[in-house]
Amino acid sequence: MSSPKPSGNPVATRVAGPATPGPGAVATLHPLGLDQVRLDGGGLLGQWRRRNAGQTLPHCLARLESSGNLDNLRAAAGEAGKEFAGMWFADSDVYKTLEAALWELAAPGSDPDMPGPASPGTRPNGREPAAPGSDPAVSGAGPRLRKFVDDTAALLARAQQADGYLNSYFTVAEPDQRWRKPVWSHELYCAGHLIQAAVAAGRTGACPGLVEVARRFADLLVERFSQVEEVCGHPEIETALAELYRLTGHRPYLDLARRFLDLRGRGLLEHGRFGPRYHQDHVPPREAREVTGHSVRQLYLLAGMVDVAVETGDGALLEASRRLWDDAVRTRTYVTGAHGSRHRDEAYGDPYELPPDRAYAETCASIAAFQVSWRLLLATGEARYADEMERVLHNAVAAAVSADGRHFFYSNPLHLRTGHTNAGEESAGHRLPWYSCACCPPNIARLMASLPAYLATGDATGLQLHLYAGATIEAGPATVRVRTDYPWQGRVELTVSAPEQWTLALRVPSWCASYSVLIDGEPAPASVDAGYLRLTGAWGESTSVVLDLGMPARQVRPHPRVDAARGCVALARGPLVYCLEQHDLPESVVLEDVRLDTGGPLEAVSTHPIPIVITASGAALDVTGTPLYTTDRHASSAAPLRLIAVPYFLWGNRGQGPMRVWLPAADTP
Amino acid sequence: MSSPKPSGNPVATRVAGPATPGPGAVATLHPLGLDQVRLDGGGLLGQWRRRNAGQTLPHCLARLESSGNLDNLRAAAGEAGKEFAGMWFADSDVYKTLEAALWELAAPGSDPDMPGPASPGTRPNGREPAAPGSDPAVSGAGPRLRKFVDDTAALLARAQQADGYLNSYFTVAEPDQRWRKPVWSHELYCAGHLIQAAVAAGRTGACPGLVEVARRFADLLVERFSQVEEVCGHPEIETALAELYRLTGHRPYLDLARRFLDLRGRGLLEHGRFGPRYHQDHVPPREAREVTGHSVRQLYLLAGMVDVAVETGDGALLEASRRLWDDAVRTRTYVTGAHGSRHRDEAYGDPYELPPDRAYAETCASIAAFQVSWRLLLATGEARYADEMERVLHNAVAAAVSADGRHFFYSNPLHLRTGHTNAGEESAGHRLPWYSCACCPPNIARLMASLPAYLATGDATGLQLHLYAGATIEAGPATVRVRTDYPWQGRVELTVSAPEQWTLALRVPSWCASYSVLIDGEPAPASVDAGYLRLTGAWGESTSVVLDLGMPARQVRPHPRVDAARGCVALARGPLVYCLEQHDLPESVVLEDVRLDTGGPLEAVSTHPIPIVITASGAALDVTGTPLYTTDRHASSAAPLRLIAVPYFLWGNRGQGPMRVWLPAADTP
Repeated sequence: MSSPKPSGNPVATRVAGPATPGPGAVATLHPLGLDQVRLDGGGLLGQWRRRNAGQTLPHCLARLESSGNLDNLRAAAGEAGKEFAGMWFADSDVYKTLEAALWELAAPGSDPDMPGPASPGTRPNGREPAAPGSDPAVSGAGPRLRKFVDDTAALLARAQQADGYLNSYFTVAEPDQRWRKPVWSHELYCAGHLIQAAVAAGRTGACPGLVEVARRFADLLVERFSQVEEVCGHPEIETALAELYRLTGHRPYLDLARRFLDLRGRGLLEHGRFGPRYHQDHVPPREAREVTGHSVRQLYLLAGMVDVAVETGDGALLEASRRLWDDAVRTRTYVTGAHGSRHRDEAYGDPYELPPDRAYAETCASIAAFQVSWRLLLATGEARYADEMERVLHNAVAAAVSADGRHFFYSNPLHLRTGHTNAGEESAGHRLPWYSCACCPPNIARLMASLPAYLATGDATGLQLHLYAGATIEAGPATVRVRTDYPWQGRVELTVSAPEQWTLALRVPSWCASYSVLIDGEPAPASVDAGYLRLTGAWGESTSVVLDLGMPARQVRPHPRVDAARGCVALARGPLVYCLEQHDLPESVVLEDVRLDTGGPLEAVSTHPIPIVITASGAALDVTGTPLYTTDRHASSAAPLRLIAVPYFLWGNRGQGPMRVWLPAADTP
Repeated sequence: MSSPKPSGNPVATRVAGPATPGPGAVATLHPLGLDQVRLDGGGLLGQWRRRNAGQTLPHCLARLESSGNLDNLRAAAGEAGKEFAGMWFADSDVYKTLEAALWELAAPGSDPDMPGPASPGTRPNGREPAAPGSDPAVSGAGPRLRKFVDDTAALLARAQQADGYLNSYFTVAEPDQRWRKPVWSHELYCAGHLIQAAVAAGRTGACPGLVEVARRFADLLVERFSQVEEVCGHPEIETALAELYRLTGHRPYLDLARRFLDLRGRGLLEHGRFGPRYHQDHVPPREAREVTGHSVRQLYLLAGMVDVAVETGDGALLEASRRLWDDAVRTRTYVTGAHGSRHRDEAYGDPYELPPDRAYAETCASIAAFQVSWRLLLATGEARYADEMERVLHNAVAAAVSADGRHFFYSNPLHLRTGHTNAGEESAGHRLPWYSCACCPPNIARLMASLPAYLATGDATGLQLHLYAGATIEAGPATVRVRTDYPWQGRVELTVSAPEQWTLALRVPSWCASYSVLIDGEPAPASVDAGYLRLTGAWGESTSVVLDLGMPARQVRPHPRVDAARGCVALARGPLVYCLEQHDLPESVVLEDVRLDTGGPLEAVSTHPIPIVITASGAALDVTGTPLYTTDRHASSAAPLRLIAVPYFLWGNRGQGPMRVWLPAADTP
């Protein structure tokens, strides 16, 4: 690997977004500010961010009130009864929503002139229609968000104890247990999310009071945890403290983050029934060679590892992070980009253990995987990390939200079987409006609110465009306007205003086998260098660049060791993985009996409301009388069937029913 | 279905074994007494029962002492401190071991003249070698067992409270919570196992004091639970009370068993995070159409349903039981006969959800499945139930015990992946000497101790032989001596002494495609009627019958809806499912890269210490450089490989390592 040196930030960042390295960081690429990338509603991401602002975020605000999260803080402030509601880490839902609101206020995702959000279902689940007036563009949600931020920051200040401690559960319900249950308490986990919200407040300049609250708590953490050898059962504080260091320049925060990493894997936690691997406490993170245990814990830990590595110039720690990321992506990641194969402990499985039906694939793990990839992209500049961001965002994360923006999956299976019976929230067959453990919805809200910050980066040579969406990007001396209907179409039209000797790097996704580029209408000689098409040179006031990424529908095959998908292919187009839904099959056909003719043509067809479906030829097996196991070669007959595959992220929006991503090939024995 | 009428028991049973229907029962077949079938060590089952007596049962006795189960009862009797050790239902381990000891004492499984147990491994796991002198045949374990039974029965009498209540946890640890936590307390579950032990005591006549203890408790149950509408979160009491009714003829026990069935599925339990299906409390058992939830709970419930149906002549209840059994066997049973696809809640999955690597396949569920099949066999006389007994016993149950008889699996995967990391007891990669939840080892002990009772049945026409093992069977006027090396060989030699007009019915297993029979050396015209070869007529003092069940090695294919085994075959021979172990592969070959040439020949080869292995031709894929997902058709090269498959039940006895039952076919895309 290359060994980048601290270079300062060549991009004149104004409102820094998530995980923006500090001035002394050893990083290759530098984020643009949240205010320098304006999503204008073209393509999926802009529409989704608009829906996030208009639907998801207001929904989260309402649920924080109705589920008692805010009342818990009021109780801690002595302003309500001493009844604690919900999970003991419920404060973290408030913090993630705060963070979302802060990013959103700094760069509003809604705009009266933009087209409305995509609505690929007529009545998603038929429940909880969006409240009239809930689009902030129409109803003035900006002031409501503003008020939520101000009120909540003030509430937090009142709920904070004199010494800086802030945690409603351990203030209200178990005051004598503060710091005494590190393996399960989530106290540092909650503190981490508070700090991340405060970093958003500080970077956007929107709420200095929140920064003060978080720093008071962080200072207490430094005071206490610099003295004792303890770590938290749920990593999160590491990345948060590194971020707070980036915001404030206060070195003790970074030192404490590194201390937590150095103390981990030394058996300091008293493990419960899931053992030390669950908490990534079986081996020091620097020495770990495989991702393991609770996926969200593993990925948040990994985010902290990269942050500390970058800020301290710790090449060995960065290398350890890359090794773990490689292990995850090479052996334990779903084709949707999701992580986590096991329901029992919300955990990674053994290598290549990737069951589609029992995929846990927690939404928060997908978000965390996106965040880790972003950090590694900044650290290394390698396109594969951006590829992974694109994959998980457009499939696993996108599938977690309903078309109405107000229903969510916690686990994200790749196969919902015929005859599936819901066994509680963890394997719901449809998206639910909220969860008793509601970590995912506000996590989606904060990711999407900060999305503009993830589209592009800068370095000394120019601009790198990683994710494609309609946007206007101002990067120092250059301006790039992007028009596209990505990922439905692979055509990306850019209008560039830039100085000469400036390089525009356009990511050519790893799924793309052929592309072309026109500059001012002329075919440009172009070759991809390590995942990016790099156009250097003569720019002026308004140069037109048209990148055309070929995105024919294609078949994707699993590694031969992925037993759970043997003999199957997935259909994909561009960054989108597709799936079959029972909805598109004749009523008499059982989804599990469908076979795909892998030799037949695939066609991408424009439809409504789903913009592009893939059609294919297939068949329905007749399995009448087939025993569960047999020595005979069963001669199943099969009736031809025209198959319609829809984007995975849109599944379950047209009523509830079976779905599958991996399609058995007709020629499998 | 047929509607059998009460016929009394035409078999002159002396020491009735488990689930022997009462005189008024509506059943088709009748068990022989435990003392009427003497396993003489020929074939697998006799050797296994001998090992059970010599190793497993003494091991259980020692562990009950060292794990604190007996001390818990001493504490309840006021004879030890008030520290409770282990799971709150730890009493049930004592009861199951008691039951095992009682069956064993009535018909000793060991015999100094018999050959020693099969030892297919040199040093299983290299741990806990069998203690010298632990074979009761050699060391006089009979008196030790006798003492254990007497001492424990006396201890139970002392631990029992004045009103009959008996449960060490709720006496010692939570005395104020008696009967107050029906969903999780396991009080009735423990009571059920006490009653089953007492039924063994009563039937064997070995320990009247234990019967008295159980009846005092049962009378308390009748008194209390006839008045309140409550059920237990863990079924077991239903079958136990029906059995106690059979022993005593005391009708209130049967009535209470039926009452518990009738009250179930009416929402009386306060469900925890796994919901009502986990406890089979989502629908009344009579109306249930699919097995669901915790597998052991479901199967114990099913056993109680059949018992009550048979004793009350309730055809509708029997029909409901058969429907549930059919659902389990048609859509949710592993090829090893095991039940339970999910680790999270130890539960059945959706239909056809049968992951080999994450098979939960709890040993207790396999034992319960055997018990349910036995009950349905008696009720209906249908061979398919005996087929299922054979399958689960020879594969799933047998695999749960090590060759040394002192190590056990709790969950029984059909695939242990390369790179598997143990995630606690529930997914151990090797057999452990004991478990914190030690329900399985004593359950094996009691099943094997009572095994002779399951081999054969009688009806008005004669004798039915269901399981094959070297044995001497005395059935009323007839005597049958069986010599066989089953399941290693399909030849079963019988010497029959019987009156004329007497029918010997020999089960021809469903896996058997061709067989022959000789009577006194002459080929006999024989045809199978509903799974049994029925030989009627001219018998005398010593008729020779030789049944030869063809058992070539064969390939077994899964139903096309079993996604987790697509493109794979399992190898089998006779009732035994085979598997590949890393142990038999070159070190450089990763198990998951092995492919089977399904067109190649299979050979059954005699070896030592494993009596019969199957050899096959295959190949090892070279997957170097293959990405996890790819659009390209990857042209893997493959190196030819001779494969050696060993009986699944013997896996993990030659050191720890990867194993798989389902073998990917070389011709799968």
